[in-house]
Amino acid sequence: MPEFSAVELIVAKRERGQLATEQIDWLIANYTSGVVADEQMSAMAMAILLNGMDRREIRDLTAAMIRSGERLDFSALAATTADKHSTGGVGDKITLPLAPLVAVFGVAVPQLSGRGLGHTGGTLDKLESIPGWRAALSNDEMHRQLAQVGAVICAAGSGLAPADKKLYALRDVTGTVEAIPLIASSIMSKKIAEGTAALVLDVKVGSGAFMKDIDRARELAKVMVDLGNDSGVKTSALLTDMTTPLGLTVGNALEVRESVEVLAGGGPADVVEITVELAREMLRLAGQPDVDVAAALRNGRAMDKWRQMISAQGGDPDAKLPVAKHSQVITATETGYLTKLDALSVGVASWRLGAGRARKEDAVQFGAGIELHAQQGDRVVAGQPLLTLHTDEPERFERAQEALAGGIEYGAEQAGGRKIILERI
Amino acid sequence: MPEFSAVELIVAKRERGQLATEQIDWLIANYTSGVVADEQMSAMAMAILLNGMDRREIRDLTAAMIRSGERLDFSALAATTADKHSTGGVGDKITLPLAPLVAVFGVAVPQLSGRGLGHTGGTLDKLESIPGWRAALSNDEMHRQLAQVGAVICAAGSGLAPADKKLYALRDVTGTVEAIPLIASSIMSKKIAEGTAALVLDVKVGSGAFMKDIDRARELAKVMVDLGNDSGVKTSALLTDMTTPLGLTVGNALEVRESVEVLAGGGPADVVEITVELAREMLRLAGQPDVDVAAALRNGRAMDKWRQMISAQGGDPDAKLPVAKHSQVITATETGYLTKLDALSVGVASWRLGAGRARKEDAVQFGAGIELHAQQGDRVVAGQPLLTLHTDEPERFERAQEALAGGIEYGAEQAGGRKIILERI
Repeated sequence: MPEFSAVELIVAKRERGQLATEQIDWLIANYTSGVVADEQMSAMAMAILLNGMDRREIRDLTAAMIRSGERLDFSALAATTADKHSTGGVGDKITLPLAPLVAVFGVAVPQLSGRGLGHTGGTLDKLESIPGWRAALSNDEMHRQLAQVGAVICAAGSGLAPADKKLYALRDVTGTVEAIPLIASSIMSKKIAEGTAALVLDVKVGSGAFMKDIDRARELAKVMVDLGNDSGVKTSALLTDMTTPLGLTVGNALEVRESVEVLAGGGPADVVEITVELAREMLRLAGQPDVDVAAALRNGRAMDKWRQMISAQGGDPDAKLPVAKHSQVITATETGYLTKLDALSVGVASWRLGAGRARKEDAVQFGAGIELHAQQGDRVVAGQPLLTLHTDEPERFERAQEALAGGIEYGAEQAGGRKIILERI
Repeated sequence: MPEFSAVELIVAKRERGQLATEQIDWLIANYTSGVVADEQMSAMAMAILLNGMDRREIRDLTAAMIRSGERLDFSALAATTADKHSTGGVGDKITLPLAPLVAVFGVAVPQLSGRGLGHTGGTLDKLESIPGWRAALSNDEMHRQLAQVGAVICAAGSGLAPADKKLYALRDVTGTVEAIPLIASSIMSKKIAEGTAALVLDVKVGSGAFMKDIDRARELAKVMVDLGNDSGVKTSALLTDMTTPLGLTVGNALEVRESVEVLAGGGPADVVEITVELAREMLRLAGQPDVDVAAALRNGRAMDKWRQMISAQGGDPDAKLPVAKHSQVITATETGYLTKLDALSVGVASWRLGAGRARKEDAVQFGAGIELHAQQGDRVVAGQPLLTLHTDEPERFERAQEALAGGIEYGAEQAGGRKIILERI
């Protein structure tokens, strides 16, 4: 590998130059090994955030991060593979019904997921509320489950893109999280290293999402779709609404319960719609555009896959889910239409009730969270139950209620119908 | 002091916001104490480099750096004080004749100087070639010499602006040196902490200078002049040419010899011109606009001050200066006008001969350097001596000659007259 100096590369990006492929390779390899210091990488991250990277540079950055670690390979499987990634939202339990639903059609779903940090929940935290279920699988166990069941949701091993892990931790403390080239390469390096053949991105837009406005969300989605396709992964994206929570539950065990309702053919319309749309998109990319996805929710086939998937990882699909020790009902203060039930407010309230964690090493309360008795746009009557808050620690109610203040609004007229799928990229 | 988070401040500057006074105070105090980490400060430095700071922010930054250390106070002196700062050039020995020249007129010159790093020389390195002379003075010694002699050139103590010292080292390795707010606050925090009442900035422009083009040099000069005046120091600036070396010598003892020639009423015209102009400017700011500066070079009064100043710091003004063990003459290869004698090329060649240092801990060779037998614009004849290279280690000649390649050009016609003082700000 040719030798460069970190300062020379930082100055090049600072002056709006493009970094050559071998410069990006050198940077990531030497950052991973510690030759390039944290203070140099953070200056580079800020220069990238402010001056950008072109499509080729982002592809090279992603490739370099993939090369920093191991790469999974599912090519020996009989089935093709498809995966979904969500940029994170409030009440976003879609992975749970989606993975078994897609597997029904013979497409294997290797879903490597994470834990929640901040106001958005983590898929692993939700599934861990099922007694016995375990997130950590070896690569062999993962392969075997994919071959036998067709769907697996498990923790990403530390061997995938370690450069990304190190860079992400650095960005978190240096004000450089919000750089599209860095977000895109962070997400996509792990997904490409994971070895999926097809990938659908669910890019959330709105108060409860990482991307608050649709232009930035669209830009991120386009960059990631290009990156996936340039790297040989069939990739598309949906921009979906995250101004208000998805479904009627927010919190780990509460969201598992709702996911099971969807798999049983019921559940809230918005959760069903987005699950079906994402499944269709994954199946289309995997070469099955014409299957009847919704039928698999009604006829029990998706539920069967779910039960197999949970059992294969030690979980008991029939076990009673954890319930919080305390609950408190919030009632509507006005009669009229619920014009605002803000995703961020509800997400933060649920987090404060114990459903999320403030630091990586914290534990979550499986039963904590919020049930919604009405959704944004619904008509409500003063005094009716609007939300039920759940926690094991009643002293948490007060700060959760503070988070909700300003997040709920009423109006005399119904706003236009809620659109869940905003765009397809 | 109110509490902030480093990330919050970085994000504010990243988004082109202005940092409040107390935010800047918090940042610098906590960076100095280690609460704000290097990787956070380097991201901030890059954000400042790319997004800038306004006049108030730069003033606050400078004030916070001053407050990180001690502050000298010359108000007890009978005389008023004036100082000069040069941004650094090749053959720039002006401080040596300038300090005693100004002191002749009863204005005290407390000149805290540095050592050379890279291709530009350091004032202390030059003076240390005088046998017995010492750079390190206590604050008491400095005060006493100012009262008795009226001029002192010595090393800045480590107590002045320690935040700047830490930040400068960080900028050096993170590609964030070239930010005008950071350059200006770095220079001016030390000069303001030094306690001078008046300050003239000699901002060099051209190949041998830190600022290669006049627009950037003018911007830096304006920011520093505003900063000085806003902080109660009467400040002005000259932009001066650094496309070709100043005078006929480059290198420590060689430059002392030329300085003594100027103090004896001789010396190269360019060195005399810039010395006299800077002295006039310092005296004007110190309230003496009408004195005959040039006469003090002719009548021996400046030389007397020089001898007192050198003696007061243990130096022997009559001692023979060190001479390098080996020399090599470079002759003109063409007959015609010397259209280019590039400052950077000569500076790097002198550095490679041993006059400068590559790392802070290196020693310099006092006798090493370059004598010029012609200046840019002069008529030369093929075969005549053009330069004499001096070093203690003859193996250094080859790399010095490589540095000169491309730095010397001839032409049939004389270029327009050389302008030394470009602008006054």
